[in-house]
Amino acid sequence: KMEKSTNLRWRLPLICFLWEIIMIILFGVFIRYDEESDAHWVEFKKENNITSDIENDFYFRYPSFQDVHVMVFIGFGFLMTFMKRYGYGAVGFNFLMAAFGIQWSLLMQGWFHSLDYSDGKIKIGVESLINADFCTASTLIAYGAVLGKVSPVQLLIMTLVQCTCFAVNEYILLNLLLVRNFTIPAQSLLLFFFLIILFIFLHLFIYQPSFIITKVLNNFVLIKNSLAAWFSIGTIFLWVFWPSFNSAISNHGDAQHRAAINTYCSLAACVLTTVAMSSLYERKGKLDMVHIQNATLAGGVAVGTAAEMMMSPYGALIVGFICGIISTTGFYFLMPFLESKLKIQDTCGVHNLHGIPGLIAGIVGAVTAASATEGVYSRQGLTNFFDLEGKNEGRSISQQGGFQAAGMCVSIAFGVVAGTIVGLVLKLPFWGDPADDCCFEDEVYWKVSGQNTPGEW
Amino acid sequence: KMEKSTNLRWRLPLICFLWEIIMIILFGVFIRYDEESDAHWVEFKKENNITSDIENDFYFRYPSFQDVHVMVFIGFGFLMTFMKRYGYGAVGFNFLMAAFGIQWSLLMQGWFHSLDYSDGKIKIGVESLINADFCTASTLIAYGAVLGKVSPVQLLIMTLVQCTCFAVNEYILLNLLLVRNFTIPAQSLLLFFFLIILFIFLHLFIYQPSFIITKVLNNFVLIKNSLAAWFSIGTIFLWVFWPSFNSAISNHGDAQHRAAINTYCSLAACVLTTVAMSSLYERKGKLDMVHIQNATLAGGVAVGTAAEMMMSPYGALIVGFICGIISTTGFYFLMPFLESKLKIQDTCGVHNLHGIPGLIAGIVGAVTAASATEGVYSRQGLTNFFDLEGKNEGRSISQQGGFQAAGMCVSIAFGVVAGTIVGLVLKLPFWGDPADDCCFEDEVYWKVSGQNTPGEW
Amino acid sequence: KMEKSTNLRWRLPLICFLWEIIMIILFGVFIRYDEESDAHWVEFKKENNITSDIENDFYFRYPSFQDVHVMVFIGFGFLMTFMKRYGYGAVGFNFLMAAFGIQWSLLMQGWFHSLDYSDGKIKIGVESLINADFCTASTLIAYGAVLGKVSPVQLLIMTLVQCTCFAVNEYILLNLLLVRNFTIPAQSLLLFFFLIILFIFLHLFIYQPSFIITKVLNNFVLIKNSLAAWFSIGTIFLWVFWPSFNSAISNHGDAQHRAAINTYCSLAACVLTTVAMSSLYERKGKLDMVHIQNATLAGGVAVGTAAEMMMSPYGALIVGFICGIISTTGFYFLMPFLESKLKIQDTCGVHNLHGIPGLIAGIVGAVTAASATEGVYSRQGLTNFFDLEGKNEGRSISQQGGFQAAGMCVSIAFGVVAGTIVGLVLKLPFWGDPADDCCFEDEVYWKVSGQNTPGEW
Repeated sequence: KMEKSTNLRWRLPLICFLWEIIMIILFGVFIRYDEESDAHWVEFKKENNITSDIENDFYFRYPSFQDVHVMVFIGFGFLMTFMKRYGYGAVGFNFLMAAFGIQWSLLMQGWFHSLDYSDGKIKIGVESLINADFCTASTLIAYGAVLGKVSPVQLLIMTLVQCTCFAVNEYILLNLLLVRNFTIPAQSLLLFFFLIILFIFLHLFIYQPSFIITKVLNNFVLIKNSLAAWFSIGTIFLWVFWPSFNSAISNHGDAQHRAAINTYCSLAACVLTTVAMSSLYERKGKLDMVHIQNATLAGGVAVGTAAEMMMSPYGALIVGFICGIISTTGFYFLMPFLESKLKIQDTCGVHNLHGIPGLIAGIVGAVTAASATEGVYSRQGLTNFFDLEGKNEGRSISQQGGFQAAGMCVSIAFGVVAGTIVGLVLKLPFWGDPADDCCFEDEVYWKVSGQNTPGEW
Repeated sequence: KMEKSTNLRWRLPLICFLWEIIMIILFGVFIRYDEESDAHWVEFKKENNITSDIENDFYFRYPSFQDVHVMVFIGFGFLMTFMKRYGYGAVGFNFLMAAFGIQWSLLMQGWFHSLDYSDGKIKIGVESLINADFCTASTLIAYGAVLGKVSPVQLLIMTLVQCTCFAVNEYILLNLLLVRNFTIPAQSLLLFFFLIILFIFLHLFIYQPSFIITKVLNNFVLIKNSLAAWFSIGTIFLWVFWPSFNSAISNHGDAQHRAAINTYCSLAACVLTTVAMSSLYERKGKLDMVHIQNATLAGGVAVGTAAEMMMSPYGALIVGFICGIISTTGFYFLMPFLESKLKIQDTCGVHNLHGIPGLIAGIVGAVTAASATEGVYSRQGLTNFFDLEGKNEGRSISQQGGFQAAGMCVSIAFGVVAGTIVGLVLKLPFWGDPADDCCFEDEVYWKVSGQNTPGEW
Repeated sequence: KMEKSTNLRWRLPLICFLWEIIMIILFGVFIRYDEESDAHWVEFKKENNITSDIENDFYFRYPSFQDVHVMVFIGFGFLMTFMKRYGYGAVGFNFLMAAFGIQWSLLMQGWFHSLDYSDGKIKIGVESLINADFCTASTLIAYGAVLGKVSPVQLLIMTLVQCTCFAVNEYILLNLLLVRNFTIPAQSLLLFFFLIILFIFLHLFIYQPSFIITKVLNNFVLIKNSLAAWFSIGTIFLWVFWPSFNSAISNHGDAQHRAAINTYCSLAACVLTTVAMSSLYERKGKLDMVHIQNATLAGGVAVGTAAEMMMSPYGALIVGFICGIISTTGFYFLMPFLESKLKIQDTCGVHNLHGIPGLIAGIVGAVTAASATEGVYSRQGLTNFFDLEGKNEGRSISQQGGFQAAGMCVSIAFGVVAGTIVGLVLKLPFWGDPADDCCFEDEVYWKVSGQNTPGEW
């Protein structure tokens, strides 16, 4: 087989410059400040009888935005640094993808969600930044599944396609099907099927059968001593800030408050069942750090759809309880099965952490929406919450559950489409991805000193 | 002596599942959203003429809550990762204890502080989450003292007992003795005596005389090269966010503002005297990272009681100045003394960081309260601050100082009781704690690859 | 040559105690709470018809303050931990300098900016804390340039001189020249010339010609394997929180909102061009982690002056685009040139990260200010923004640009003066700086275990 060239000296700079210049042009044509970040806000305030600067959305959402920003760049970046010789790639490529992804997401989500038809401009504010971070987060999760096996050029292409599909899918869900609070599980589902299809393409066209065995035996060595504890800093930042993630774009007031409480409860319960299952699966009852670093987050994913709802704190505990069990089980049984039988190597176990909890989230969301009553929410609360006076006036609460189920199907379809596109594009031979025996090695794409022998690190 | 079994395959899952199920049931029976996180808030707003969503307590306290949350999970977790072969245990068990502790604290503190007698439910909001984090933090501090020597099952039991005692103690202080702003030093004092009693029990019943010498010579090796600098990330997060810790549940407005300023000043002063003393104690004037990583935080602990008070920025500097000296001295003289003479091995030096500064905090709190005057606080300020129109109407300001002193005695009593209970329970032989020569080893409870030889890490 | 004594047993404690006692006295004489952090706020509220506690500046700025605080202590501290044997010094001395710097800055900035002439007291609030952190940050940046080559006593002296010069310079810019939003580029410029002069002094009087070659060959070994990825946690925290840095002291409302958006955009663009240039410069197209860890931040520095302005998101992208290119080029060409030709060894590449982007920031600030029009800002917005009704009433917008240019010249002058003072003071022989062959070694000033052989770490 022909040696692949991993020298990206022209390809990587070209794609970075080209895309950044396109970004500048599109931002120049389309993106402007919204009324709360524009200097005319002083007039807007007067016209709308806003008496205080603190009413600016910035003060409602900026603290949550910064938490989400830490999750995207620190949390996801360090979550993937568990391999002995792929630390630069994990943190550095995560950084590159995220920096491009947030720009492209601002445009894509802007066109679909905040285009001002009066002047054809996208008006952005702090909520747009949060949404861009959300959209990018899904791409970074997908990176976990192909970590160490693709080139930065491929990652940039993947980011482009995925952010596009996510924004379109989100538009269909929020604006056409009018299902509220469905971004996170929709992303999970889309991601789930995106990855399945992508893996099939990668498997069929790219990797050799000898791939897995050789790597596992030689270079694909996980860090397995006490230094590894440091890597859990990524996990813990995600865990700690997940309440902000789930509440960042909730309605002002009680909804944002409730979303944080529910996520806090679900995550706490998830830790206990993850520890329990991890100990139960091992013959000597020892805990596996891989479970602790991943399955503990499933509670945050699964409660995502319904975090804003009146699910009660004990409802959140139940969701977390179930997710800890299922996600740990996935890591223990499903991952080795996928790897040995289907030759699907999901480096970070994305399916167990995001795929399955995403499915649970969809179900939880549909159930809580269908069971919402005036007694629990108050008449006014219900109206505000489901935006019943808006476009979906007259839609019953139980219908709402049906639409959420429909949203799940749309997301699956988009996942299949995105996976196919990315899979087909990536199998083209000129993106500089590493040969099979160079996977999981920083030195393919990074300047690393020569003393890096396998025995030492 | 019979070999102890550290196989927790049934014990750990059982206790995790059992307790989490009990949590779900108790949450189901007792815990509901408070008026600001409930969907009926839209009605509550109207009834109370609240004109803006930003008046929701969420926006007053959520940023501080997230800082406290980072302290509990990142700060305390990484503060304890200084041992070569106990990184998983430090971060992982801290995570488990904290996740259980916050659930149990929500219940315990809820029963005592926010039980709504009209319907028998506990109503929670963001302030409840902060209080739960506070209550749990004290347990995590105590973990530092027994780090590496106990099993996760014992840690969960310790968490249960300690959170219970803290919540009851807090109830007596806040609701019966009516001493305000006394949570933190009361916790410190309780902790101090809790640990002393606990150590006595552990020493008398559990550890062998050969314990200390062998461990120090062989496995209990602290990380002592430049990589160790990374571990100070725990310390620095605690240091940076301590102003949020001390101001998170202060009264809205100037009190919260002042608490942050005072803590900021006290901590800054503490760093300089810690560095000075650390250099002074070493023959060649070299600094000891253990002092920098611990004693620098004492200023935050000691200013805790009085942070809200009009102690003036220079008053805060004086508190920090004194604490840096005393805490570093404790690390230098007291710790080796306790270890060699009394055979008390306080792994993290909790006594020097929390015990003694806690005592100082109690004194500072009593003095500042007793010297509060109308001139400094304004009549209205004084009334609001000491809640003089509430239950303790008619109590003079100097009486207030007396009640705070009484609060210290109650806390000491609770510390002794809690220490006795935990000590007696832990000495039971079936909790799976490690044998003496397996202490401070991750591989007792964690899956660790076999290549972990003493010379390499 | 006489062996230098690096035993700081008396010098370091003496300077720490002395300065802290002076701080306590000066704080006692001068520093008081401002009206929003004083207990009289309850009366102030009534007099000024403030209806809600949330109008306290604490709630506008505290979340940003905490982000800036993390940048100063975690970001700058860990940015400098890239040397194999200088981790303690990087984090520990950064901690010491910052803790002293914020106290001294509170005083210096207080005297110049918030002295209440009615009672001769400095009134501090959360904005003062942010400004103190800003002022200190510039000192920590300068530390990067002399990292490993000076003693903690020298660092404390450097902190004192630099904070003083910065505060005076800032006073001239803000209060005499009336140039708004110019703190950050002014600091960059001052820093730039400060460092150049300082280097000349250090080179002429202190270091031996043999210095660079021997160190680079032997001990000055950068960490260059996958563990090094962890060090980027400093970079990423700086990158993530830079929007808070640039918006923390902006005007309430839209200005703060806009500053965050512009910084977010500029930073994202900067990452792409940094990656592009890094790949382009290396023969095999490999990326250099040093570029990623430094040049990606230049976008935040350069947008600093104009972040509050209506520069549009695409304007911010252009600034970031240019800065990524220039800063990476600086690291690739300028740094080796300075080191080999001028014998200037800028350990952290401060010139490329802060010096040159600072110059760009000055130009961007002048241009955006000169081109501000009523159409873009609204009449009221323009008046508020440039404080046209204040002291600089009647000054035209284009004049404003001229004054900003004048501000640059003043900053350069201050840089030269500060550099000369610090250079002259530091060359005095009694500050305990390390001999040439002991530079970049933690064990000079820290207790480190003896097993630290060059081959192992």
